Amino acid sequence: MPSYKLTYFDACGFGESARMLFHLGGVPYEDVRLPTINAVPGFQSDEFSALKDKTPFGRFTVLSIDGFDLAQSSAIHRYLARKFGYAGKTPEDEAFADSIVDQFNEYYASLHPYRDAVKTGKTMEEVKQIHDKVYIPAKNLMFKILTRILKENKSGFLVGDGLTWADLVVADHLYTLTNLKELDPEDPIHLTLRKFQEKIFNLTELKDYIETRPVTLV
Amino acid sequence: MPSYKLTYFDACGFGESARMLFHLGGVPYEDVRLPTINAVPGFQSDEFSALKDKTPFGRFTVLSIDGFDLAQSSAIHRYLARKFGYAGKTPEDEAFADSIVDQFNEYYASLHPYRDAVKTGKTMEEVKQIHDKVYIPAKNLMFKILTRILKENKSGFLVGDGLTWADLVVADHLYTLTNLKELDPEDPIHLTLRKFQEKIFNLTELKDYIETRPVTLV
Repeated sequence: MPSYKLTYFDACGFGESARMLFHLGGVPYEDVRLPTINAVPGFQSDEFSALKDKTPFGRFTVLSIDGFDLAQSSAIHRYLARKFGYAGKTPEDEAFADSIVDQFNEYYASLHPYRDAVKTGKTMEEVKQIHDKVYIPAKNLMFKILTRILKENKSGFLVGDGLTWADLVVADHLYTLTNLKELDPEDPIHLTLRKFQEKIFNLTELKDYIETRPVTLV
Repeated sequence: MPSYKLTYFDACGFGESARMLFHLGGVPYEDVRLPTINAVPGFQSDEFSALKDKTPFGRFTVLSIDGFDLAQSSAIHRYLARKFGYAGKTPEDEAFADSIVDQFNEYYASLHPYRDAVKTGKTMEEVKQIHDKVYIPAKNLMFKILTRILKENKSGFLVGDGLTWADLVVADHLYTLTNLKELDPEDPIHLTLRKFQEKIFNLTELKDYIETRPVTLV
């Protein structure tokens, strides 16, 4: 079996779906968790800079597979999903899962101005303005897409009739949004997605991992 | 053989690698090219809005495969690359190609403020400011990554010893940059990448297509 090392921050974010996939595959790996302070814009220790400079594209997440360093979280997740049987059952299902994750990545990238405002110490009012202008419409659009997919697919999973890495990526993010109080329990769309996240986290093959993993806010 | 229909604007951009892959695979498809005016921010005809509303995520590129509509250009390109044998020869090569394209997509997305400034009629001075602040550093970083990969890989391709869809995505963009006069013939890094692009476009299996395809600026 190859030797795997996953390097990411001590957070869920772009590393957690890989960790879940290792659990699902029953495959041991080294889980290197960097202090999250390094992810704050503007902050960089010399040690972190040196680490970063050795990565393929100057950033984390990185998965080392017998010494081959693979960057970019979606490439990592897809690679593990295909190895462990969670990429989708047909080429079309695989492509559909890919497309959902790409759409999610675009949504997530569009939130950068908001995340930066939070991390770089803008005033509460400035943060709220960016939240309303950037976060809310992006979230509404992504949520509309996700609930439509779930409604059309009927299986309770995003793709086909079983778990794929697209479910993991989306459920992980919804859990983070719950922690950040970004889901409104009165909103039927939010409620649908919260139920989807709970269903995924309560799957027999994931439940144990979720209950015993390191606790982080995001 | 499935019936394929690709819908994108009358431009290279996020559709051209799919068109090249169809040519490489020797597989016929319907090449629907929407007027590029619809891609300008703020402009939308009723007809285009109606078309967009029928896409999986409200946007183009879309590939219809026997009526199954697949969105997101990278998901489309990867799907075709795997069908036609241009995804990479090993799981690790496939993942490396994926990671290069994801890095490219992040670079390309980071240019949005510049592209919007050009399209929405900012003054020459404003456009130049955004060009220097956004475009130049993003391009320099991406070019550094690409030239390092080419140097390390030695085959003249980005991944392994043969053509993959990562080469197509990158070469198409470099050709567009040449058209837009964004490559400096005096800069050795730009020259390396220009030579890479010419090598890809001159491959026996692509040359004919490149010479006879519709001519567009971008």
